[in-house]
Amino acid sequence: MRRTEVRLSGEGGQGIILAGIILAEAAAIYDGANAVQSQSYGPESRGGASKAEVIIADGEIDYPKVERPDVLLAMNQEAYDKYAPSLKDDGIIVIDSTNVTAGGTPSFQASHVRGGPITGLARDLGREIVANIVALGFLCAVTGVVSRESLEKAVLARVPKGTEDLNRRALAAGFSAAQAEASRV
Amino acid sequence: MRRTEVRLSGEGGQGIILAGIILAEAAAIYDGANAVQSQSYGPESRGGASKAEVIIADGEIDYPKVERPDVLLAMNQEAYDKYAPSLKDDGIIVIDSTNVTAGGTPSFQASHVRGGPITGLARDLGREIVANIVALGFLCAVTGVVSRESLEKAVLARVPKGTEDLNRRALAAGFSAAQAEASRV
Repeated sequence: MRRTEVRLSGEGGQGIILAGIILAEAAAIYDGANAVQSQSYGPESRGGASKAEVIIADGEIDYPKVERPDVLLAMNQEAYDKYAPSLKDDGIIVIDSTNVTAGGTPSFQASHVRGGPITGLARDLGREIVANIVALGFLCAVTGVVSRESLEKAVLARVPKGTEDLNRRALAAGFSAAQAEASRV
Repeated sequence: MRRTEVRLSGEGGQGIILAGIILAEAAAIYDGANAVQSQSYGPESRGGASKAEVIIADGEIDYPKVERPDVLLAMNQEAYDKYAPSLKDDGIIVIDSTNVTAGGTPSFQASHVRGGPITGLARDLGREIVANIVALGFLCAVTGVVSRESLEKAVLARVPKGTEDLNRRALAAGFSAAQAEASRV
């Protein structure tokens, strides 16, 4: 039975929690899987760090805690440095290369790290605030944890009215960047 | 050590998940506690039901699942009927009396159920969409799970820019309704 653990991390204001909710809803409401989405708040959240987790499974999710993610999104350096070591052996880290320099050995990077200029692409669209949606597009293209069609539906169901076109373009920018990055790997 | 389990329930479009995030952030970022906030999506979420859970504790939260809530918010009848039986023996149910008729024996109701016209108050403010914020004010006044000051800060940090005054009034309406209801108990 498939069980995929995703951790999204960055800082307050980057829309990490909304990204987690959208990913869970893409998986559960539109792709028909089960999902649990959670955020744990402790001292680090008072310091401005933001983290959201999503577990996607075909069956029941009895244990709702992420221990070692299959997929990690790191939207800033602190998040990368903190969570990269927790990745599963065959996991994938998506980094926002606008903000993050991947550490680790070259072989670790080659097998685990996929990077795109997520925040830069959002700035190109004129609204840095959509970096979370760019990130979801990139992550979905690289990992296939949800279908693109379901992700787009989930995004459009959650973003403010009047911003649908901007968010659709943000998602597409993330997908395109992932495809461009894949052709370089 | 204090551990309080809160379940917020209703239907899609009532802002249940945002209410859960705000409650967790009030507890953790502003009141200095630890909190875990989660939503589980399964077949019922595809049917339109919405549920969010918050655990608030002074210490570490090792087990992040709500089994028997101390506090239940029921924003529609289906949610009340489904979750009221799961309440802890000394728990409190907050119902939106605009939408919900409390079941159970009169003694169960007297000891457990606190009701206010949450959606009706939101309509009076001209925006039914703020019913979730009215509900948080009511729930906070009745249960004291977070401080009013922290709750207001958390609300204002999460609602869209330009809606701060509306949401401040929604919160105040919830508090006032709880005080009025308490004087009748």
